[in-house]
Amino acid sequence: MFRYKITLAYDGTNYCGWQNQNNAISIQSLVEHALSTALRRKVQVVGSSRTDAGVHAHGQVAHFTVPHEIDTLRTIASLNGLLPKDIRILAILEVPLTFHARYSARSKIYRYHLHLDKVMDPAKRLYAAHIFSPIDLSCLTEAAALLIGEHDFSSFANEQHAGCAAKNPVRTLFRIDYVEEPGGIRLEFEGDGFLYKMVRNIVGTLLDAGRGKLSIQQVSDILASKNRTRAPATAPPEGLFLLRINY
Amino acid sequence: MFRYKITLAYDGTNYCGWQNQNNAISIQSLVEHALSTALRRKVQVVGSSRTDAGVHAHGQVAHFTVPHEIDTLRTIASLNGLLPKDIRILAILEVPLTFHARYSARSKIYRYHLHLDKVMDPAKRLYAAHIFSPIDLSCLTEAAALLIGEHDFSSFANEQHAGCAAKNPVRTLFRIDYVEEPGGIRLEFEGDGFLYKMVRNIVGTLLDAGRGKLSIQQVSDILASKNRTRAPATAPPEGLFLLRINY
Repeated sequence: MFRYKITLAYDGTNYCGWQNQNNAISIQSLVEHALSTALRRKVQVVGSSRTDAGVHAHGQVAHFTVPHEIDTLRTIASLNGLLPKDIRILAILEVPLTFHARYSARSKIYRYHLHLDKVMDPAKRLYAAHIFSPIDLSCLTEAAALLIGEHDFSSFANEQHAGCAAKNPVRTLFRIDYVEEPGGIRLEFEGDGFLYKMVRNIVGTLLDAGRGKLSIQQVSDILASKNRTRAPATAPPEGLFLLRINY
Repeated sequence: MFRYKITLAYDGTNYCGWQNQNNAISIQSLVEHALSTALRRKVQVVGSSRTDAGVHAHGQVAHFTVPHEIDTLRTIASLNGLLPKDIRILAILEVPLTFHARYSARSKIYRYHLHLDKVMDPAKRLYAAHIFSPIDLSCLTEAAALLIGEHDFSSFANEQHAGCAAKNPVRTLFRIDYVEEPGGIRLEFEGDGFLYKMVRNIVGTLLDAGRGKLSIQQVSDILASKNRTRAPATAPPEGLFLLRINY
C-alpha cells in the first residue's frame, strides 16, 4: 500500500465546506471524485481540517491510500484538469503509511481577514469580513494575548452535531498575530489544533473587545466559564482561510 | 442645476462592462437605476472610462446633473442599499457644472495583476491573469520602458465598433511600474488617457517580451507600425483594475 499527502487550495464560497454531507456539494466529494477518475479506482481522502461553508484554504492537507505507486506530477495535472477552477491541487507527496493528515499535524495556521473601511471593497467581499464599527486595535490585541497558551476552549467551541462536543476541549494556541493590509487587518492564529468554529468564535469575541463591548476582564471570564453561551457571536465564514498545516 | 462626481468600486465579473448595452447588464445601468430610485427622477451618468466585461474598478468616476441639491451622505447610503454588493459607491461630491468625468481627467491609473505561480490561487482567479510560462522581468520592464511617453498607440488599440477607431490615437503614458505581490506581480499604468483595450493590449505584448517571444526591437517595430494586427493578443480582462482618475 502507498500513502500520499495532497495539499490543496480552494475558494469555499460555492461549497457546503470540506466535509462530505448529504444533499450538498463538498470539496472533499469533488476531490474524491476527481481522484477516483484520475486513478481509475474508488479513492477516499482524509482531511486535516473540516472547514465550514464559505471558509477558504490556501493549504488544506488530506491523505489517501492506494495499492499501487502513482505518478504524482501527472496526477496533479489530471486533477487540476478535472476539478473546477475554485479548487486547485498544489502538491502530492508520497508519505509513510503512518502519516495521518489530521493526527500527524503538529500545528495549524489560520488567517482571518477583516476589512475595516467604511465601504466594503467589492473584490474582497467573498474573502474578508466587513466590520462597520470602529475597532480599537490595542484592546483587540490585549484580549488576544489572554487566549495564548494551553486552555480549555469550551467557550469558543460550537457543538458539531447536537450533543456532540469535542471529548477534550483543551488546545494550545501558540500565537495570534496581526498584520495590517490595505483597507484592514488580518489576524493569524497558530495552534496545535482548533475546536469546531473556534477561530471564528475567538474572532467574534476579539471584535467585541475591540469595539469596547467587552472589557479585558470579561474576555478572561468568558474563557474561564468554559461555556459557549457566554461568548459573543461567531464571525462570518468568508474572512477565514486555512493557511497551512505543519507536520 | 447641480453636478455631482460619484466615485465607485466594482467587481466586473458578472457584468458586460461599465457601458450600457442592449440585452446585457452593465454597471452604468444599475447605477442609473439606483440613482433614479434614490432621487425619484430619471438620472443619467457619464463615466470616465468604459471598462470591459470582467474588468474591475477600485475608483471609477462618473458625473450626473440634477435640478436640486442632494444630501450626498444619505444618497451614498441609499445607493449602497439599492445596489448589489459587487458595486459600491465610495463618495459623492458636488462639483462645478464645468466638471466632466471623461474630459476633465488629467490622468488615469490602471493596475494589471499577473499571477505567476505554476498553479492559480483559487481566491485570485477572478482578479488576476494566470501566466503559466516563465517571465523574464528584466525583458518585460525593458519593453515597458519603450512605451513610456507620447506615442501614436494605434498598434495597441482595438476598434470599439466596426470601423470606429479613436479619432486621435496619440496618448501619453507617464509610467509603467511593477510591484511584486504574493504569487506574482502587478503592473501599474498611468497616462493622460487610454485607447480601447490599450492596457490589455500592452500587457499582451509585454508578456510576449517577458517570455522571449518578442525582442525589444520587435516591440519597438510594433509600436512604430501603428497597426493593431502586428501586436500580440489582448491579455484577459480579469487582471485589470481601474485604480484612480486624477482631475
